[in-house]
Amino acid sequence: MRSPQSLHNGDTPSPLPRIPHFQSTLSVQKLRRFNSLILVFRLAAFCFSLASSIFMLTNSRGSNSPRWYDYDAFRFVFAANAIVAIYSLFEMGVSVWEISRGATFFPEVLQVWFDFGHDQVFAYLLLSADSAGTELARTLKGTDTCTAANAFCLQSDISVALGFAGFLFIGVSSLLSGFRVACFIINGSRFHL
Amino acid sequence: MRSPQSLHNGDTPSPLPRIPHFQSTLSVQKLRRFNSLILVFRLAAFCFSLASSIFMLTNSRGSNSPRWYDYDAFRFVFAANAIVAIYSLFEMGVSVWEISRGATFFPEVLQVWFDFGHDQVFAYLLLSADSAGTELARTLKGTDTCTAANAFCLQSDISVALGFAGFLFIGVSSLLSGFRVACFIINGSRFHL
Repeated sequence: MRSPQSLHNGDTPSPLPRIPHFQSTLSVQKLRRFNSLILVFRLAAFCFSLASSIFMLTNSRGSNSPRWYDYDAFRFVFAANAIVAIYSLFEMGVSVWEISRGATFFPEVLQVWFDFGHDQVFAYLLLSADSAGTELARTLKGTDTCTAANAFCLQSDISVALGFAGFLFIGVSSLLSGFRVACFIINGSRFHL
Repeated sequence: MRSPQSLHNGDTPSPLPRIPHFQSTLSVQKLRRFNSLILVFRLAAFCFSLASSIFMLTNSRGSNSPRWYDYDAFRFVFAANAIVAIYSLFEMGVSVWEISRGATFFPEVLQVWFDFGHDQVFAYLLLSADSAGTELARTLKGTDTCTAANAFCLQSDISVALGFAGFLFIGVSSLLSGFRVACFIINGSRFHL
Protein backbone atom coordinates (compact mmCIF):
# COMPACT_ATOMS: atom_id res chain seq x y z
CA MET A 1 0.00 0.00 0.00
CA ARG A 2 2.29 2.76 1.19
CA SER A 3 5.43 2.70 -0.90
CA PRO A 4 8.74 3.14 0.90
CA GLN A 5 10.51 4.84 -2.06
CA SER A 6 10.70 8.16 -0.25
CA LEU A 7 13.50 6.72 1.87
CA HIS A 8 16.74 7.70 0.20
CA ASN A 9 20.06 5.99 0.74
CA GLY A 10 21.69 7.23 3.90
CA ASP A 11 18.56 8.77 5.34
CA THR A 12 18.00 7.98 8.95
CA PRO A 13 14.71 6.24 9.28
CA SER A 14 12.07 8.01 11.25
CA PRO A 15 10.75 6.04 14.21
CA LEU A 16 7.17 6.74 13.07
CA PRO A 17 5.89 5.00 9.95
CA ARG A 18 5.62 7.65 7.27
CA ILE A 19 2.94 7.55 4.64
CA PRO A 20 4.24 9.15 1.45
CA HIS A 21 1.43 9.92 -0.94
CA PHE A 22 2.81 10.04 -4.44
CA GLN A 23 2.11 7.80 -7.39
CA SER A 24 4.90 5.53 -8.58
CA THR A 25 5.39 4.74 -12.28
CA LEU A 26 3.99 1.25 -11.70
CA SER A 27 0.92 2.73 -10.06
CA VAL A 28 0.36 5.17 -12.95
CA GLN A 29 0.77 2.34 -15.48
CA LYS A 30 -1.71 0.16 -13.62
CA LEU A 31 -4.22 3.01 -13.46
CA ARG A 32 -3.81 3.57 -17.20
CA ARG A 33 -4.47 -0.11 -17.87
CA PHE A 34 -7.52 0.05 -15.58
CA ASN A 35 -8.82 3.13 -17.42
CA SER A 36 -8.25 1.44 -20.78
CA LEU A 37 -10.33 -1.49 -19.57
CA ILE A 38 -13.15 0.87 -18.54
CA LEU A 39 -12.87 2.55 -21.96
CA VAL A 40 -13.36 -0.80 -23.73
CA PHE A 41 -16.49 -1.55 -21.70
CA ARG A 42 -17.84 1.94 -22.32
CA LEU A 43 -17.25 1.55 -26.04
CA ALA A 44 -19.16 -1.75 -26.01
CA ALA A 45 -22.00 -0.22 -23.96
CA PHE A 46 -22.14 2.71 -26.40
CA CYS A 47 -22.29 0.47 -29.47
CA PHE A 48 -25.01 -1.81 -28.12
CA SER A 49 -27.22 0.90 -26.67
CA LEU A 50 -26.88 3.05 -29.80
CA ALA A 51 -27.78 0.05 -31.97
CA SER A 52 -30.73 -0.72 -29.70
CA SER A 53 -32.09 2.81 -29.82
CA ILE A 54 -31.67 2.99 -33.63
CA PHE A 55 -33.45 -0.35 -34.05
CA MET A 56 -36.33 0.92 -31.95
CA LEU A 57 -36.43 4.36 -33.61
CA THR A 58 -36.70 2.89 -37.10
CA ASN A 59 -39.41 0.43 -36.06
CA SER A 60 -42.36 1.99 -37.93
CA ARG A 61 -43.53 0.84 -41.33
CA GLY A 62 -46.15 3.22 -42.71
CA SER A 63 -49.48 4.19 -41.24
CA ASN A 64 -51.09 0.73 -41.33
CA SER A 65 -48.40 -0.91 -39.27
CA PRO A 66 -48.06 -0.52 -35.48
CA ARG A 67 -45.61 2.17 -34.36
CA TRP A 68 -43.14 1.78 -31.51
CA TYR A 69 -44.03 5.15 -29.94
CA ASP A 70 -47.59 4.00 -29.37
CA TYR A 71 -46.28 1.66 -26.67
CA ASP A 72 -45.00 3.14 -23.42
CA ALA A 73 -42.54 0.33 -22.75
CA PHE A 74 -40.93 0.67 -26.18
CA ARG A 75 -40.64 4.43 -25.66
CA PHE A 76 -38.93 3.62 -22.35
CA VAL A 77 -36.54 1.20 -24.10
CA PHE A 78 -35.67 3.84 -26.69
CA ALA A 79 -35.20 6.63 -24.14
CA ALA A 80 -33.08 4.53 -21.76
CA ASN A 81 -30.84 3.27 -24.56
CA ALA A 82 -30.44 6.73 -26.05
CA ILE A 83 -29.52 8.17 -22.65
CA VAL A 84 -26.98 5.40 -22.05
CA ALA A 85 -25.51 5.86 -25.54
CA ILE A 86 -25.03 9.62 -25.02
CA TYR A 87 -23.63 9.10 -21.53
CA SER A 88 -21.25 6.38 -22.75
CA LEU A 89 -20.02 8.65 -25.52
CA PHE A 90 -19.33 11.40 -23.02
CA GLU A 91 -17.59 8.97 -20.65
CA MET A 92 -15.45 7.63 -23.48
CA GLY A 93 -14.25 11.17 -24.11
CA VAL A 94 -13.53 11.57 -20.40
CA SER A 95 -11.62 8.26 -20.34
CA VAL A 96 -9.53 9.21 -23.37
CA TRP A 97 -8.79 12.57 -21.75
CA GLU A 98 -7.70 10.85 -18.52
CA ILE A 99 -5.56 8.26 -20.31
CA SER A 100 -3.84 10.83 -22.52
CA ARG A 101 -3.32 13.59 -19.93
CA GLY A 102 -3.04 11.54 -16.75
CA ALA A 103 -5.57 13.79 -14.98
CA THR A 104 -9.31 13.58 -14.60
CA PHE A 105 -11.64 15.82 -16.61
CA PHE A 106 -13.51 17.04 -13.53
CA PRO A 107 -11.78 17.37 -10.14
CA GLU A 108 -10.90 13.86 -8.96
CA VAL A 109 -13.46 13.58 -6.15
CA LEU A 110 -16.27 14.78 -8.42
CA GLN A 111 -15.14 12.55 -11.28
CA VAL A 112 -15.11 9.26 -9.37
CA TRP A 113 -18.50 9.92 -7.78
CA PHE A 114 -19.99 11.23 -11.03
CA ASP A 115 -18.87 8.14 -12.94
CA PHE A 116 -20.03 5.66 -10.34
CA GLY A 117 -23.34 7.35 -9.59
CA HIS A 118 -24.31 7.60 -13.24
CA ASP A 119 -23.10 4.10 -14.09
CA GLN A 120 -25.14 2.64 -11.26
CA VAL A 121 -28.32 4.58 -12.01
CA PHE A 122 -28.12 4.07 -15.77
CA ALA A 123 -27.42 0.34 -15.39
CA TYR A 124 -30.60 0.01 -13.32
CA LEU A 125 -32.50 2.26 -15.73
CA LEU A 126 -31.48 0.21 -18.74
CA LEU A 127 -32.30 -3.10 -17.06
CA SER A 128 -35.68 -1.81 -15.98
CA ALA A 129 -36.48 -0.54 -19.49
CA ASP A 130 -35.38 -3.75 -21.15
CA SER A 131 -37.35 -5.92 -18.71
CA ALA A 132 -40.47 -3.85 -19.33
CA GLY A 133 -39.79 -4.05 -23.07
CA THR A 134 -39.40 -7.82 -22.88
CA GLU A 135 -42.69 -8.19 -21.05
CA LEU A 136 -44.50 -6.01 -23.60
CA ALA A 137 -42.92 -7.92 -26.50
CA ARG A 138 -44.06 -11.20 -24.91
CA THR A 139 -47.58 -9.86 -24.42
CA LEU A 140 -47.73 -8.62 -28.03
CA LYS A 141 -46.66 -12.07 -29.27
CA GLY A 142 -50.06 -13.48 -28.37
CA THR A 143 -52.07 -10.69 -30.02
CA ASP A 144 -53.08 -9.77 -33.56
CA THR A 145 -50.37 -7.12 -33.68
CA CYS A 146 -47.65 -9.69 -34.12
CA THR A 147 -49.65 -11.86 -36.51
CA ALA A 148 -50.28 -8.90 -38.80
CA ALA A 149 -46.88 -7.23 -38.44
CA ASN A 150 -44.31 -9.87 -37.66
CA ALA A 151 -41.37 -7.66 -38.70
CA PHE A 152 -42.40 -5.05 -36.13
CA CYS A 153 -42.28 -7.60 -33.31
CA LEU A 154 -39.03 -9.08 -34.53
CA GLN A 155 -37.35 -5.68 -34.69
CA SER A 156 -38.61 -4.85 -31.18
CA ASP A 157 -37.16 -8.12 -29.91
CA ILE A 158 -33.80 -7.34 -31.45
CA SER A 159 -33.81 -3.84 -29.99
CA VAL A 160 -34.56 -5.17 -26.50
CA ALA A 161 -31.88 -7.87 -26.82
CA LEU A 162 -29.29 -5.28 -27.87
CA GLY A 163 -30.35 -3.21 -24.88
CA PHE A 164 -29.66 -6.16 -22.56
CA ALA A 165 -26.16 -6.49 -24.06
CA GLY A 166 -25.62 -2.77 -23.43
CA PHE A 167 -26.77 -3.29 -19.84
CA LEU A 168 -24.17 -6.03 -19.32
CA PHE A 169 -21.37 -3.68 -20.33
CA ILE A 170 -22.57 -0.68 -18.37
CA GLY A 171 -23.04 -3.04 -15.39
CA VAL A 172 -19.40 -4.07 -15.58
CA SER A 173 -18.35 -0.41 -15.97
CA SER A 174 -20.31 0.35 -12.84
CA LEU A 175 -18.37 -2.35 -10.94
CA LEU A 176 -15.06 -0.88 -12.12
CA SER A 177 -16.02 2.71 -11.33
CA GLY A 178 -17.35 1.51 -7.97
CA PHE A 179 -13.90 0.13 -7.26
CA ARG A 180 -12.40 3.54 -8.08
CA VAL A 181 -14.79 5.19 -5.63
CA ALA A 182 -13.81 2.72 -2.91
CA CYS A 183 -10.12 3.40 -3.66
CA PHE A 184 -10.85 7.08 -3.33
CA ILE A 185 -12.65 6.65 -0.01
CA ILE A 186 -9.97 4.38 1.44
CA ASN A 187 -6.76 5.88 0.01
CA GLY A 188 -7.89 9.41 -0.77
CA SER A 189 -6.94 8.85 -4.41
CA ARG A 190 -8.26 6.91 -7.38
CA PHE A 191 -4.88 5.16 -7.58
CA HIS A 192 -5.23 1.75 -6.03
CA LEU A 193 -1.60 0.97 -5.31
CA MET B 1 -1.38 -8.15 6.55
CA ARG B 2 1.79 -8.33 8.66
CA SER B 3 0.79 -8.26 12.27
CA PRO B 4 3.01 -6.20 14.55
CA GLN B 5 2.30 -8.26 17.64
CA SER B 6 5.69 -9.92 17.23
CA LEU B 7 7.34 -6.66 18.30
CA HIS B 8 7.65 -6.73 22.05
CA ASN B 9 8.30 -3.83 24.36
CA GLY B 10 11.92 -2.75 24.32
CA ASP B 11 12.58 -4.12 20.83
CA THR B 12 14.56 -1.72 18.68
CA PRO B 13 12.46 -0.45 15.83
CA SER B 14 13.27 -1.72 12.35
CA PRO B 15 14.83 0.87 10.00
CA LEU B 16 12.13 0.28 7.38
CA PRO B 17 8.87 2.10 7.82
CA ARG B 18 6.56 -0.28 9.53
CA ILE B 19 3.00 -0.79 8.47
CA PRO B 20 1.13 -1.83 11.55
CA HIS B 21 -1.88 -3.77 10.39
CA PHE B 22 -3.76 -4.73 13.45
CA GLN B 23 -7.32 -3.88 14.14
CA SER B 24 -7.59 -1.14 16.71
CA THR B 25 -10.58 -0.91 18.98
CA LEU B 26 -11.78 2.04 16.91
CA SER B 27 -11.51 -0.01 13.73
CA VAL B 28 -13.43 -2.92 15.24
CA GLN B 29 -16.10 -0.53 16.51
CA LYS B 30 -16.42 1.10 13.10
CA LEU B 31 -16.74 -2.28 11.42
CA ARG B 32 -19.42 -3.26 13.90
CA ARG B 33 -21.33 -0.06 13.16
CA PHE B 34 -20.95 -0.73 9.43
CA ASN B 35 -22.25 -4.29 9.87
CA SER B 36 -25.17 -3.04 11.93
CA LEU B 37 -26.04 -0.66 9.11
CA ILE B 38 -25.97 -3.54 6.62
CA LEU B 39 -28.15 -5.56 9.01
CA VAL B 40 -30.76 -2.79 9.07
CA PHE B 41 -30.90 -2.64 5.27
CA ARG B 42 -31.12 -6.43 5.03
CA LEU B 43 -33.98 -6.45 7.53
CA ALA B 44 -35.82 -3.85 5.45
CA ALA B 45 -35.16 -5.78 2.23
CA PHE B 46 -36.42 -8.96 3.92
CA CYS B 47 -39.62 -7.33 5.16
CA PHE B 48 -40.51 -5.73 1.85
CA SER B 49 -39.70 -8.70 -0.35
CA LEU B 50 -41.50 -11.10 2.00
CA ALA B 51 -44.54 -8.85 2.02
CA SER B 52 -44.40 -8.58 -1.76
CA SER B 53 -44.22 -12.34 -2.28
CA ILE B 54 -47.05 -12.96 0.21
CA PHE B 55 -49.22 -10.34 -1.50
CA MET B 56 -48.60 -12.04 -4.84
CA LEU B 57 -49.05 -15.57 -3.46
CA THR B 58 -52.46 -14.79 -1.97
CA ASN B 59 -53.66 -13.04 -5.13
CA SER B 60 -56.25 -15.61 -6.24
CA ARG B 61 -59.96 -15.37 -5.48
CA GLY B 62 -61.72 -18.54 -6.48
CA SER B 63 -61.94 -20.20 -9.88
CA ASN B 64 -63.81 -17.38 -11.65
CA SER B 65 -61.20 -14.77 -10.86
CA PRO B 66 -57.81 -14.49 -12.63
CA ARG B 67 -54.93 -16.18 -10.86
CA TRP B 68 -51.46 -14.71 -10.49
CA TYR B 69 -49.71 -17.90 -11.58
CA ASP B 70 -51.36 -17.72 -15.00
CA TYR B 71 -49.15 -14.73 -15.76
CA ASP B 72 -45.42 -15.29 -16.33
CA ALA B 73 -44.41 -11.84 -15.14
CA PHE B 74 -46.29 -12.24 -11.84
CA ARG B 75 -44.68 -15.64 -11.33
CA PHE B 76 -41.34 -13.91 -11.91
CA VAL B 77 -42.23 -11.20 -9.35
CA PHE B 78 -43.19 -13.84 -6.79
CA ALA B 79 -40.08 -15.98 -7.40
CA ALA B 80 -37.64 -13.06 -7.32
CA ASN B 81 -39.15 -11.66 -4.14
CA ALA B 82 -39.21 -15.06 -2.45
CA ILE B 83 -35.55 -15.65 -3.38
CA VAL B 84 -34.55 -12.23 -2.05
CA ALA B 85 -36.53 -12.78 1.16
CA ILE B 86 -34.82 -16.13 1.83
CA TYR B 87 -31.42 -14.73 0.94
CA SER B 88 -31.94 -11.66 3.15
CA LEU B 89 -32.97 -13.88 6.05
CA PHE B 90 -29.81 -15.93 5.66
CA GLU B 91 -27.68 -12.79 5.37
CA MET B 92 -29.30 -11.34 8.50
CA GLY B 93 -28.20 -14.46 10.37
CA VAL B 94 -24.69 -14.08 8.95
CA SER B 95 -24.61 -10.41 9.98
CA VAL B 96 -25.77 -11.16 13.51
CA TRP B 97 -23.13 -13.90 13.73
CA GLU B 98 -20.43 -11.47 12.58
CA ILE B 99 -21.53 -8.69 14.92
CA SER B 100 -21.76 -10.99 17.93
CA ARG B 101 -18.62 -13.07 17.35
CA GLY B 102 -16.43 -10.58 15.53
CA ALA B 103 -15.62 -13.12 12.80
CA THR B 104 -17.27 -13.93 9.49
CA PHE B 105 -19.46 -17.01 9.06
CA PHE B 106 -17.55 -18.23 5.98
CA PRO B 107 -13.82 -17.55 5.57
CA GLU B 108 -13.38 -13.80 5.10
CA VAL B 109 -12.45 -13.83 1.40
CA LEU B 110 -15.40 -16.08 0.55
CA GLN B 111 -17.78 -14.10 2.72
CA VAL B 112 -17.11 -10.67 1.19
CA TRP B 113 -17.35 -11.99 -2.38
CA PHE B 114 -20.40 -14.14 -1.60
CA ASP B 115 -22.26 -11.19 -0.08
CA PHE B 116 -21.41 -8.76 -2.85
CA GLY B 117 -22.00 -11.18 -5.72
CA HIS B 118 -25.39 -12.25 -4.44
CA ASP B 119 -26.45 -8.72 -3.51
CA GLN B 120 -25.60 -7.48 -6.96
CA VAL B 121 -27.27 -10.32 -8.85
CA PHE B 122 -30.39 -10.34 -6.68
CA ALA B 123 -30.75 -6.55 -6.90
CA TYR B 124 -30.76 -6.81 -10.69
CA LEU B 125 -33.07 -9.84 -10.56
CA LEU B 126 -35.58 -8.04 -8.36
CA LEU B 127 -35.54 -4.88 -10.47
CA SER B 128 -36.01 -6.91 -13.62
CA ALA B 129 -38.93 -8.86 -12.13
CA ASP B 130 -40.61 -5.74 -10.80
CA SER B 131 -40.21 -3.87 -14.09
CA ALA B 132 -41.73 -6.79 -15.98
CA GLY B 133 -44.51 -6.98 -13.35
CA THR B 134 -45.20 -3.25 -13.72
CA GLU B 135 -45.47 -3.55 -17.49
CA LEU B 136 -47.86 -6.50 -17.21
CA ALA B 137 -49.96 -4.68 -14.60
CA ARG B 138 -50.14 -1.64 -16.91
CA THR B 139 -51.15 -3.83 -19.85
CA LEU B 140 -53.83 -5.58 -17.77
CA LYS B 141 -55.27 -2.20 -16.71
CA GLY B 142 -56.64 -1.69 -20.22
CA THR B 143 -58.24 -5.14 -20.50
CA ASP B 144 -61.38 -6.80 -19.22
CA THR B 145 -59.38 -8.60 -16.53
CA CYS B 146 -59.06 -5.46 -14.45
CA THR B 147 -62.62 -4.31 -15.10
CA ALA B 148 -64.00 -7.64 -13.87
CA ALA B 149 -61.52 -8.23 -11.05
CA ASN B 150 -60.30 -4.90 -9.79
CA ALA B 151 -59.05 -6.33 -6.49
CA PHE B 152 -56.75 -8.71 -8.37
CA CYS B 153 -55.10 -5.84 -10.23
CA LEU B 154 -54.84 -3.70 -7.12
CA GLN B 155 -53.19 -6.48 -5.15
CA SER B 156 -50.73 -7.10 -8.01
CA ASP B 157 -49.86 -3.40 -8.04
CA ILE B 158 -49.21 -3.43 -4.31
CA SER B 159 -47.05 -6.53 -4.60
CA VAL B 160 -44.95 -4.96 -7.37
CA ALA B 161 -44.62 -1.70 -5.40
CA LEU B 162 -43.43 -3.59 -2.32
CA GLY B 163 -40.96 -5.41 -4.55
CA PHE B 164 -39.54 -2.06 -5.71
CA ALA B 165 -39.08 -1.02 -2.07
CA GLY B 166 -37.25 -4.31 -1.42
CA PHE B 167 -35.06 -3.58 -4.44
CA LEU B 168 -34.07 -0.19 -3.02
CA PHE B 169 -32.83 -1.79 0.19
CA ILE B 170 -30.99 -4.69 -1.42
CA GLY B 171 -29.48 -2.14 -3.84
CA VAL B 172 -28.07 -0.17 -0.91
CA SER B 173 -26.85 -3.41 0.72
CA SER B 174 -25.07 -4.20 -2.51
CA LEU B 175 -23.29 -0.82 -2.38
CA LEU B 176 -22.17 -1.47 1.20
CA SER B 177 -21.01 -5.03 0.54
CA GLY B 178 -19.28 -3.76 -2.61
CA PHE B 179 -17.35 -1.37 -0.40
CA ARG B 180 -16.32 -4.31 1.81
CA VAL B 181 -15.04 -6.19 -1.26
CA ALA B 182 -13.03 -3.16 -2.36
CA CYS B 183 -11.58 -2.86 1.18
CA PHE B 184 -10.65 -6.51 0.98
CA ILE B 185 -8.96 -6.10 -2.42
CA ILE B 186 -7.06 -2.98 -1.36
CA ASN B 187 -6.21 -3.73 2.27
CA GLY B 188 -6.43 -7.52 2.35
CA SER B 189 -9.04 -7.22 5.07
CA ARG B 190 -12.67 -6.18 5.34
CA PHE B 191 -11.61 -3.59 7.94
CA HIS B 192 -11.47 -0.24 6.21
CA LEU B 193 -9.31 1.63 8.66
